Amino acid sequence: MEDIKLLLKGLALADTRAIARSISIVENELDGYKQLLTALPLGKSTPLIGITGPPGAGKSSIINSLIRLLTGKGKKLAVVAVDPTSPFNFGSLLGDRLRMSEHFTNPLVYIRSLASRGSLGGLSAKIIEVTDVLKASGFDYIIVETVGVGQSEVEIVGLADTTVVVLVPEAGDEIQTIKSGIMEIADIFVVNKSDREGADRFAKNLTHLVHRHKNEKWVPPIIRTVGIRDEGITELAEAIENHGSSGILNEKRAYLLTEKALRLIQNEKMRDTDRRLIYRMIEDQARRPDFNIYSFVDNLISGKPVT
Amino acid sequence: MEDIKLLLKGLALADTRAIARSISIVENELDGYKQLLTALPLGKSTPLIGITGPPGAGKSSIINSLIRLLTGKGKKLAVVAVDPTSPFNFGSLLGDRLRMSEHFTNPLVYIRSLASRGSLGGLSAKIIEVTDVLKASGFDYIIVETVGVGQSEVEIVGLADTTVVVLVPEAGDEIQTIKSGIMEIADIFVVNKSDREGADRFAKNLTHLVHRHKNEKWVPPIIRTVGIRDEGITELAEAIENHGSSGILNEKRAYLLTEKALRLIQNEKMRDTDRRLIYRMIEDQARRPDFNIYSFVDNLISGKPVT
Repeated sequence: MEDIKLLLKGLALADTRAIARSISIVENELDGYKQLLTALPLGKSTPLIGITGPPGAGKSSIINSLIRLLTGKGKKLAVVAVDPTSPFNFGSLLGDRLRMSEHFTNPLVYIRSLASRGSLGGLSAKIIEVTDVLKASGFDYIIVETVGVGQSEVEIVGLADTTVVVLVPEAGDEIQTIKSGIMEIADIFVVNKSDREGADRFAKNLTHLVHRHKNEKWVPPIIRTVGIRDEGITELAEAIENHGSSGILNEKRAYLLTEKALRLIQNEKMRDTDRRLIYRMIEDQARRPDFNIYSFVDNLISGKPVT
Repeated sequence: MEDIKLLLKGLALADTRAIARSISIVENELDGYKQLLTALPLGKSTPLIGITGPPGAGKSSIINSLIRLLTGKGKKLAVVAVDPTSPFNFGSLLGDRLRMSEHFTNPLVYIRSLASRGSLGGLSAKIIEVTDVLKASGFDYIIVETVGVGQSEVEIVGLADTTVVVLVPEAGDEIQTIKSGIMEIADIFVVNKSDREGADRFAKNLTHLVHRHKNEKWVPPIIRTVGIRDEGITELAEAIENHGSSGILNEKRAYLLTEKALRLIQNEKMRDTDRRLIYRMIEDQARRPDFNIYSFVDNLISGKPVT
């Protein structure tokens, strides 16, 4: 317990070793895990910026450029790259690209990647816990990068104060099919690689869509960038700033906390479900011709004998 | 109850109306939902073929071509297209493409799409339940198509007897980064659009990788196809057949059932978690400066008063 108090003091002082130790405790659920989380001062709200979008849209270059800009102003940043273990989304490259970047030795930047723990919601809860530790650690911004395909971009919405969706002009042809979901997700659109052909038309189409889905409180701006040349990044940082000070976050807060609570509840409820034990029970019983998995699960949950 | 018995009889006779009604009961959790599931005769095992791969790889054309071949031999097929509501994966097109296909009026083919119910595992459980209804309905094959990006392809692995991963030659450059995950997933590789440049080199590289990850029991064959011209589909059907009769499915069975059980358990455990109630509680309490979401969740789960 004393150890946890010391850690919390260290976090308040933005001590790098305390941050690393705390994240390690949370990630591996070591002794003091619960005490640490329930004692985190979550009142002060560090802006959490979610950066998502399809593979190849240039999320990492946008983030690198954003880091350059913000650290140039003396801001302290934490960057979390979420690496789901999907064979298709090349997730593990995200963290690598950032780790190998020029910022790795910058004392103003803390870079961490989080790997998937399978498909039972474990990663989702870990992102919440780790970013909450970072919120207590004196950063000016927390940036979370996810590959926006599959469910991960839905998760970022329940987590980020400001969600930035990075697209490229080539997405143009498909915009009609993506509009419904994307409009609910994006607080800010980035059209990256906007020196490419078709960028004008794409940005114009996007503008039309945004205005058709207009919400009185916040109209997502469309920022044109060329990430690798740092173009448009000042505008992006301003848009993030504006969204943060628009007052819309206050309204979103209960929703965001509800999403977080649901994922933490799911994680807790599945904590005692022992995959290996279930495997052994199934190995035993599935040979019976009348084996029915729904009865098996019902019995298991209701505590009836299942053997 | 009597109603459910009649439905089960209808399923055994492959009656289309009984199938549609049963799926509707399961999907919407109507009266009799549990009785139906626990009474399903799950002993006979209809092969469940999962078709996954990145967007644009041509999964739908492969499936259309496979339907043509198999129904030509008088086989009865059920096809389930899983449409996660992701804004990036263009999921809803899957079902559309199949629905609009030539097979929609073919009496040997039953086509159904399943939409996402949010990110709390509901879709995952529904796929299991719906495909189990189909397994009791006299089909020769069940084909499940998912967009293989994000977590959906991980889900197909725990569900399908035979998982077919569809790739295109353009994926070649990225093969080094995908190899680890993909090797665990694929029972069969399809290199679609293999009339394109680079197809030879790509198939060769894939062959090398497959042999490096060799498993004594089953070496995933690499089938070259041009889906829109029906090329290579006979070979694909043979490979599916071979995998089914290889004996490896018997070994995989307890694993597959364990994965299914875990998803059903998660779905059951979250069933009573009322999002709106939690939202109201959070709206009430989150104003307090000392509000801590981890304490909130702990209290909620342990049944302590949370107000």
